[in-house]
Order: sequence, then structure tokens, then C-alpha cells
Amino acid sequence: MRADDRVLASLRANHDRILGKLVEFASIPSVSTDPAHAADIDRAAHWVAAEVAAAGPLAVRILPTAGNPVVYGEWLGAPGRPTVLVYGHYDVQPSDPLEKWHSPPWTPTVRDGRLYARGVSDDKGPMLIPIAVAGAFFATSGRLPVNIKFMFEGEEEIGSRHLDAFVLQHKPLLAADFVASADGAMWRIDEPSLTVASRGLCGLEITLTAAAKDLHSGRHGGGVANPLHAMAALVASLHEPNGRVAVAGFYDQVRELSSGERAAIADLPYDERAYLAQVGAAAAFGEPGYTTLERQWTRPTLEINGMWGGYQGPGQKTVIPSDAHAKITCRLVPDQDPDAVAAQVRRHLEVHVPPGVQLSLSLADHGSRAAHIRADHFALRAADAALQATYGVRPLVVRMGGTVPIAELFQRHMGLDTVFFSFSTADEDFHAPNEFFRVHRLQEGLEAWAHYWTILGEASA
Amino acid sequence: MRADDRVLASLRANHDRILGKLVEFASIPSVSTDPAHAADIDRAAHWVAAEVAAAGPLAVRILPTAGNPVVYGEWLGAPGRPTVLVYGHYDVQPSDPLEKWHSPPWTPTVRDGRLYARGVSDDKGPMLIPIAVAGAFFATSGRLPVNIKFMFEGEEEIGSRHLDAFVLQHKPLLAADFVASADGAMWRIDEPSLTVASRGLCGLEITLTAAAKDLHSGRHGGGVANPLHAMAALVASLHEPNGRVAVAGFYDQVRELSSGERAAIADLPYDERAYLAQVGAAAAFGEPGYTTLERQWTRPTLEINGMWGGYQGPGQKTVIPSDAHAKITCRLVPDQDPDAVAAQVRRHLEVHVPPGVQLSLSLADHGSRAAHIRADHFALRAADAALQATYGVRPLVVRMGGTVPIAELFQRHMGLDTVFFSFSTADEDFHAPNEFFRVHRLQEGLEAWAHYWTILGEASA
Repeated sequence: MRADDRVLASLRANHDRILGKLVEFASIPSVSTDPAHAADIDRAAHWVAAEVAAAGPLAVRILPTAGNPVVYGEWLGAPGRPTVLVYGHYDVQPSDPLEKWHSPPWTPTVRDGRLYARGVSDDKGPMLIPIAVAGAFFATSGRLPVNIKFMFEGEEEIGSRHLDAFVLQHKPLLAADFVASADGAMWRIDEPSLTVASRGLCGLEITLTAAAKDLHSGRHGGGVANPLHAMAALVASLHEPNGRVAVAGFYDQVRELSSGERAAIADLPYDERAYLAQVGAAAAFGEPGYTTLERQWTRPTLEINGMWGGYQGPGQKTVIPSDAHAKITCRLVPDQDPDAVAAQVRRHLEVHVPPGVQLSLSLADHGSRAAHIRADHFALRAADAALQATYGVRPLVVRMGGTVPIAELFQRHMGLDTVFFSFSTADEDFHAPNEFFRVHRLQEGLEAWAHYWTILGEASA
Repeated sequence: MRADDRVLASLRANHDRILGKLVEFASIPSVSTDPAHAADIDRAAHWVAAEVAAAGPLAVRILPTAGNPVVYGEWLGAPGRPTVLVYGHYDVQPSDPLEKWHSPPWTPTVRDGRLYARGVSDDKGPMLIPIAVAGAFFATSGRLPVNIKFMFEGEEEIGSRHLDAFVLQHKPLLAADFVASADGAMWRIDEPSLTVASRGLCGLEITLTAAAKDLHSGRHGGGVANPLHAMAALVASLHEPNGRVAVAGFYDQVRELSSGERAAIADLPYDERAYLAQVGAAAAFGEPGYTTLERQWTRPTLEINGMWGGYQGPGQKTVIPSDAHAKITCRLVPDQDPDAVAAQVRRHLEVHVPPGVQLSLSLADHGSRAAHIRADHFALRAADAALQATYGVRPLVVRMGGTVPIAELFQRHMGLDTVFFSFSTADEDFHAPNEFFRVHRLQEGLEAWAHYWTILGEASA
């Protein structure tokens, strides 16, 4: 089963125009974590709404939340066919460290078949694709093969912190048969894949304070505690030297893999040396007893994402700083509860805080469980067929180390499963300098979404 | 024995003018550690040279070094009298963190009898005093009681890194009977004191690298090492939990205190609660088996002055950074050798670097031994008498936790002892925001230097 040739021809004919739209979209610095970019967030939301409205006779609205707005658009002209809630996000990560970018993060630049810009892969390229596909269906036949509800949020990079309340408030509006997420990223560029599980997340930020002010390390060194020493000791206490998390109870709720699940992962084509070469690391490292893929997909982690205090400039400054800071996130797997894990980490920190310093701690105001979808779900089978129609091979079944909080959120509030149908690839340096999106994936994604909706519509006909 | 009344009257009459000069001097942001302030360093050197030239018939020169210049001025018109090499420095610490200053660091501001500005206490106020005193002697009698060689350097805050070569190159020019340092700071504001020992210094900077680029902590967490975890473990390994330095051999060369020396320190008026209240710390902390004063004055320390890596901005950024950094300095006591200690620390780091990361290490290009002066040194006795003449009480004999590399340098190259004769006070927040100099110490310092030179001249007459 394939999409109509006229739709595919329309998508091919419009490729350069759609790429131009992506360049326009990725030029907007819609960084959600930094309040300085509030106006850019607003600009991005309006840009998306206009794009959806231009695609065809969709009802488009910009819906407020307590944070950044959701762009919503629906077309429900296919009674008896499935209703697909298409998810994506128009917000992006910060661009720092700026000096490591080879071209400016907000000036999308094509080099060697890759479009470089912040957010181009996560998630602006992937979310623009289903909008363009809707445009092609409307242009060629005036209708879509399925009912569509577009929902693009502006807070994914800050943990979708107001989406929970938004979904609760708009349950009837969002009612659907399943969620198709344009966010999520395929595993590798060489083989198409379908992701059936993702990890959850919880986070904390801590500060250690000794003296009330920065002190001269000559005069005072040896007198009072140095919060940087205390931070090092406290952070070091969070892991055993072999990489296992040392927080009491951390692994208690973890559902162990079955031998069949381990075998399925071991059977996947995976070259660890190639992976290490890609990230530029000399060796893999982590919890003993598991392969690298098992650790990244099925085991929880505790990572320090930032740690700082004292003098960072050129030369020396002989200071004992007043305070030291660290940002912590944990990736969670079934059946860990984000609040329970955050509480365990907090307890560990409170018990292990070294003498001479005060600990202050703030929990990130959101957390999310790990998510997974059944292998025989109709929407997953249709996605499998759509990728086969696009690539001519069956996709691999893989998991995801990252977190898409919406999967767990839609499951919890609305009982909906999520299919990740994204055409970014996990190596495209999102959350790092020089993020890029492969230009040929734009065309592949356009065709695959056209096939996907067509197959979903036919299967129910 | 006291200075001539006309000199003292002149100093009192000129107090406000001299204070105005200090405001002018402290307005120059002569930060030596930051190349962006090179022009300010040059401006400060010329300002000092002009000030020395204005004081009287001194021969003034700005002498180049491989770094910042030395301002030199001499008057040798007192044959048979001692020759005093007066030392000070016109460079200052950086002003960050700027947001913690209550008035701008480069706009000297008087509040409650204190002059607030970066460098006003370390060392611009104290070094301006002997220049002004020379002016008062010349104005009232046309001569000085002793021969004077002024030597003001511009790299004290970066470890006097070119002073070694400078002194070797100018040994005949600098020949003197002893060094009187306007840098060094008195122990406390309540009791005048003479410092007879200071600690040495050596420093290193380290970087740990895992992957070649920043990685998304979802996708990659559990796959490769996190350099922040490794840095925490490595830094934590440098101390035992009780605060003792864990570097092998670190204490081997340390000359233990005699019971008499420990008793002398124990006899000093010292209120630990008042000290802790002053720095705003809840408790003292450090190597067990020694009092706080013993730890600060007579025991070596290893301090992390800065540690950083990953995301430091608002909100979360789920990154595993490519690298992590730390700046380390050690304070040294007799008979530790800076190079030997730096080599011990390097060896410790190399042995303890955790798996999965690469260590790169740079030694600061200077180090200095601890320094001390004999209790019966003629210049120390004269300083004692001068402080008695100024304050009406005998000064306490104390030590210094900080480092004045010149003391060891002049001892090693020229066999000269150093008397610290400074009128800043150790609590004046040099190396921290809101550095200040007590205005009444300006007048006290002016009178004390006038007494000091007078006593030195008379004693040898």
C-alpha cells in the first residue's frame, strides 16, 4: 500500500520550497529555557500557526498555557477513519557554547547535504514535514486520508512543564486514536527504525555554601570548608567507581529485561567501535553487567549536566568561593517513578553532604515516566508498513535513551499510545553545537508520512 | 624615637590630597590576569612613575620585563645609612563577580569610613603611603633619613611571574640592606602586628575529556563517561574526608612546629567565633590535629579555586559535556619545594584519573617557597619600634597564610630578608567583591612609615 502518485509528485515538486520554509523556521531563536527569548517563542508559534493554516482547510488556533502556547490545528473530514494526534515542538535548546559552532546557530547553512542550525533536527525539520504533507494532500485531492489533529508545543526542551495541565484541560479537543510524534529521532541513518520505548526523566539542582562570601585562599585556606571540595565529594558519592549509581534504592523499581529482550537487542546490527568513533570517545563506560545499548536504552542513569563554582577565567585567582553548584538529571526506565527517584537522590544528598557546608536543593518542577508501545499496536504496524514503502526494507525495532514526556503523559491522561515517526537521526547533534538535519531525510520524511496516513486510512476503510 | 614633627604635620596637612590620589589610582582597572586590561596596566605604571617623580628628587624609571613593567625610583643621598628596597604592586585582582559589588569596583566610594574599590587595599593604598611619606620628608627637609629604592611591580596577582628574571638582571641596581614590603596586610584591625612568615604557592590547571563533543544525556547517558563525574571523583580523591590532603608525600617536607611555636600562636588573642562570624561560616574546617590559626599559618593546603563544566544557565540542559576543568593551588610552608609539591600533585592526578576520560594538565609557570624572618633582625626591631611609636602598644608577632613571592625571591637571589610593613588589614576582602581600605589606616600608615625610616636612620647613625 502506497500513497497516491499525485501526492508524492506534489511533495517532490515542492521540495525546495519546503526546505526554504525550514530555513525560515530555524532562523527563529525560539529557546524556551531562557526568558530572554520570550518574543522569539511567540514569533515561532505564530509562524507555525500560519504554516498550518496555509496547508489547507484546517481549523487553527494558538492555545495559551501557563507557559508557552500550543499551536493546534484540526481537520476531521474523514469520518470512520482513525484520528491521528500529530505531536511536535517548535521550541529549541540554547545555542551555547556559541564559539564551537562552525556557522551561526540561527543562520541555517547547508554544507555537504546537511542543514546546520539550532533546532533544525530537534524538532523543526521533523515537525514541519507532516504540515507539508497535509498541504500536498489538500492540494491534490482536497482531503486527507485520516482525521488529523496537529498539536505543536513550545516547552519540550524544558520538560513540557505545562503540557500536563493543558492536556487535562483539553481532553475532548485532543481525543484521538493514537499519537504520532514527529519528535523522537531515528536510531541511525543507515537503517530505518521504529522506536518502541523511551526513558523517563527527573531533575534536581543543588548548591553548597560554606562562608557567606568569597575568601582569599591564602589568608583563609585551611580555616573553613571549600564548597568545591565538598561538591566534588558529594557528586563523587553518587556513583560507584565502576559507574553504577550509588543512591540507595535507585534500582529497586527497575523492571529487569527478559532474556528475550536482551537477545533482541543483541541481535541488532551495532558496531561499538563505530559508535565510539562517532562521538569521539576512546572507550565506552557505564554500569557493569550490561552492554552499551542495554545501558543507554534499558538502564537508568544519573548524570551531572553542569557543575561550577569559583574562578573560570584566564590565569589564576586564589579564591575559596562562597558556593558551588550542580545540575542533576536521572533517566528512568519502567517501572521507576520520577518523584520516588528524585526523593531517593535528595535523601542521598542530604545524608552525604560533607561537613562544613550547607546544602540547598531544588527539584525540577516536572518529571516523566518511561514509555513503551505494544509490538502489535495497529498504528505501529502501519508505521512499519509506511517505512517499508519508503525505504524498501523492514525497519529495525529499537528503543530510545532519551525522554519524550508526552508519550507518558498521553498514556496517563488519555490512554493513548505514541508512535515515534520522526526523520531526524540520533547523531545529528541536537543539544550540542553544530546541530544538523540531513537534507535527503526531508524528502524521505515527506513520502513516509504520506504513506503512513494513506495506510492508516485504508486499513480502517 | 619618632619622626620629626614637621614631617608628621605635613602628612596630616596633606591627608585629603593623598586620599584623592588613592581614589585616582584605584580608578585604573589594572587587572594583570586579563590581557584585555593591558592598556590599564600601562596607564597604572605611568601614574605611579609620575607620583614617585613628584615626591622629590628621585631618579625614576619604568623598567620593562617580559611581562608588565616595574616602576623603579631611587634616592641614595644618605651615605652610611641603610638602604631600604621598598616593594609594592600596582596590579590588582579581577573584579568578578561584578553583580556582588555594592558600588562599582572602579569607582572608589567612601562609605562608613571605608574606601571601597578593587585593589584599594591590595595593594594600591599601602604602596601609595611610602611614596607620600617620601614627599613629606623632601618637602620639609629636602632629604630622607635613609636611602630608598622604590620598586613597584605589575604582576603580583599573577604570581610575579617575570620578577625572578628581572631581579637577576638588575641585582646591582636593587642592592639594599633589606626589603620593606608595603604589601602583605596586617592580621587584624584591633591590634598592630608584624608578620614574620608567609606561605608559598604552586598551581596547576586540569582538564578531563571524554567524548570529542557535548552529547545529549538521553541518547548517550550510560554509554560513555561523563567528565563531570570523573572530575568530582578526581578532585574528591585529593583530600581525605577530614580535610587532610591525600596526595602521597604532600606533608613529607613540612617542618613541624616546635612546642614553643605552637604555644606562641596559642597565646595570641584570637576569638574563633568572631572569625567565623566575620567570614559568615557556620564552622571551621580543615586538617585534624591543628588549631585554625595553625592550619592557616603553618600547615600546607591544597585548594580548588575553580571547577566547571557543562551547562550553568537557567533551567535544564540535558547535556553530557565534552570536558570538565579545575584550577588548583597549594599553599606551602617551610621546607616544601613548590616544584616537588606540584610534581606530587601531578602524580596523584595521573594515578587517580578515573576510567573513560583523558587528563591534560598544565603547571602554572611559577611557584614560590614559604618565607620567614629572624626575630632579632634589625629591620624587624625597627619596625616594631615604629609601630609602637604610632599605636602606643607593642605589635603582635604573627604569621600570614597568604603568599608574597617576593620575600622568597629576594632571599634566594640577593640574600635579603623582607619586613612586611603594610597598612591594609586581612579582613578587607581583597580577592573578593567589595574590597575596601579603612580610611584611618592611611594616616596611621603615613606616620608609621615616617617613624620607620627615621628609626632606621637614627639606629645606624
